[in-house]
Amino acid sequence: MYNHADLKDLVDKAIINLSYNTEAGKLIDPVKYILSIGGKRLRPVLALMACNLFSDKIDEAVIPATGLEVFHNFTLVHDDIMDQAPVRRNFPTVHSKWNINQAVLSGDVMAFIANDCFLQAPPRCTSKVFRVFNKAAIEVCVGQQLDIDFEKAIIVSEDEYLRMIELKTAVLLAASAKIGAIIGGADDKDSELLYEFGRNLGLAFQIQDDLLDIYGDIKVFGKIPGGDIISNKKTFLLVKALEIASGEQHKRLKEQFAMKEFDPETKVKKVIDLYDQLNIKAVTENIANDYINTAFSLLDKIGAVKERKKELAQITCSLIGRNR
Amino acid sequence: MYNHADLKDLVDKAIINLSYNTEAGKLIDPVKYILSIGGKRLRPVLALMACNLFSDKIDEAVIPATGLEVFHNFTLVHDDIMDQAPVRRNFPTVHSKWNINQAVLSGDVMAFIANDCFLQAPPRCTSKVFRVFNKAAIEVCVGQQLDIDFEKAIIVSEDEYLRMIELKTAVLLAASAKIGAIIGGADDKDSELLYEFGRNLGLAFQIQDDLLDIYGDIKVFGKIPGGDIISNKKTFLLVKALEIASGEQHKRLKEQFAMKEFDPETKVKKVIDLYDQLNIKAVTENIANDYINTAFSLLDKIGAVKERKKELAQITCSLIGRNR
Repeated sequence: MYNHADLKDLVDKAIINLSYNTEAGKLIDPVKYILSIGGKRLRPVLALMACNLFSDKIDEAVIPATGLEVFHNFTLVHDDIMDQAPVRRNFPTVHSKWNINQAVLSGDVMAFIANDCFLQAPPRCTSKVFRVFNKAAIEVCVGQQLDIDFEKAIIVSEDEYLRMIELKTAVLLAASAKIGAIIGGADDKDSELLYEFGRNLGLAFQIQDDLLDIYGDIKVFGKIPGGDIISNKKTFLLVKALEIASGEQHKRLKEQFAMKEFDPETKVKKVIDLYDQLNIKAVTENIANDYINTAFSLLDKIGAVKERKKELAQITCSLIGRNR
Repeated sequence: MYNHADLKDLVDKAIINLSYNTEAGKLIDPVKYILSIGGKRLRPVLALMACNLFSDKIDEAVIPATGLEVFHNFTLVHDDIMDQAPVRRNFPTVHSKWNINQAVLSGDVMAFIANDCFLQAPPRCTSKVFRVFNKAAIEVCVGQQLDIDFEKAIIVSEDEYLRMIELKTAVLLAASAKIGAIIGGADDKDSELLYEFGRNLGLAFQIQDDLLDIYGDIKVFGKIPGGDIISNKKTFLLVKALEIASGEQHKRLKEQFAMKEFDPETKVKKVIDLYDQLNIKAVTENIANDYINTAFSLLDKIGAVKERKKELAQITCSLIGRNR
């Protein structure tokens, strides 16, 4: 059995060893760059853990798992263009280091490099793996569209917000776990359980990410608290707060997010005060916990020995920062 | 056997009947738009003609063939961003009708809609078809990068230019013909012959396109003659002219393309004068003809009855505007 560190190491090496069509070097430089500036490699690690539940031959899953990371980074390169984001993981984004055209084109080729990785899944399941990936890929695009649409919307319901993060984030984690399971030889029932496990994990993970923006440790997360508040981003906290706020609180919250000019520190403080009055931190943590509990109960149902599930249980706890 | 018009009709219907994830309507509107504003559907028609050489069951090739058109239009949407092109086929480009972000994202989803079409190839050859497509897709990105690089280059050699158009245009026609052949049940030798046939056809087609910019009939092609000259675009004519020009002619030609401010009509006239002195029209036509002759000799070698090859021969003639 492989542990988390082993698997991340396998993925990192596979990323370094990816082979490229290098006839136009300028096309590939940004690809190598974005893939080299780190990240947790969560999607491929999840795929390999899911594979390892059912098989010790995880070698055949390494390249397809790498495809998930390449695809994820493709979405980051293009999302950063759309968000006009200057920085990603403390490094300049591709379009700011090069230019928008280069980010469009080098992003594009990453989508086909990812395809190539999935085509290297074992012949017995290549099409099946590809179908799971491709459905998720389309859904990720839909999720990004909803995210853009929501920026302009005045009110977004909790259900709408959850569906957006499900599409934008959770379905790719779900597909990652399912792809690993399929390559590992899982049956349809277990593959589907892993899909649902990944989906719940992804929802919890994204809600947790919204929480960390305000309540995270700056030393650990490297972001100034309240960045989402300052940039008027719709988060689960805001959506939930607007849903449960009384008339007066609702009005004050909307006022804060309607302001074009403001002192950032004051705004963050006022919004957090309102969140505190509404007990948003606990309400949000409870919902993230519900998803994590669902993920654990799905993990229990999967037909593999308990010992094998240890790494998936651990990564689930670590993502949400709790002990089981 | 199906004729050209039948096949184009099949493709047009398949495009109209494509099913989409419509959860975010704004994502799909530009996809429907770009696919609805026409075009010759050359790639899918070529695929279906190649399939029909070997089989009358072309139904199973229709959706994969449609994938080639969706992919081609994906490249147009993103290329138009990079070229800042306001108009395509006499209609506003996607980024000018919507905005750049929408063109990036709706373009992206087209790449995965194309994937979905290839996944609908018959199970006996899904992976094979996908591999042929995906290699071409990566090469098209490389070709676009070379095209961008060449814009800034002072001198581009004939070989470099030919390699660029091979990657940017010809390999997708080659892959289209090969994919059709594979689905039709052709053996490896015939599939490869069709790849080479498509590649030569594509090279001739692109060189012809460069010729038509100057010598084309405005009524037929809908473009003002000399657009490529006015926009300082590197074309086969320019590359070839710079290669064979004497010292003085070379200097005058470079001067024309170095000017930042100029009267368009005068510039077009002066460049055409120089092309005429160098006999560029005939030289270029000869080279396009060589590729067409190679395409015909490849077509002759393919193991299908002559009668079956009629449509492919006809489309080859029509692309280059000649009788066999």
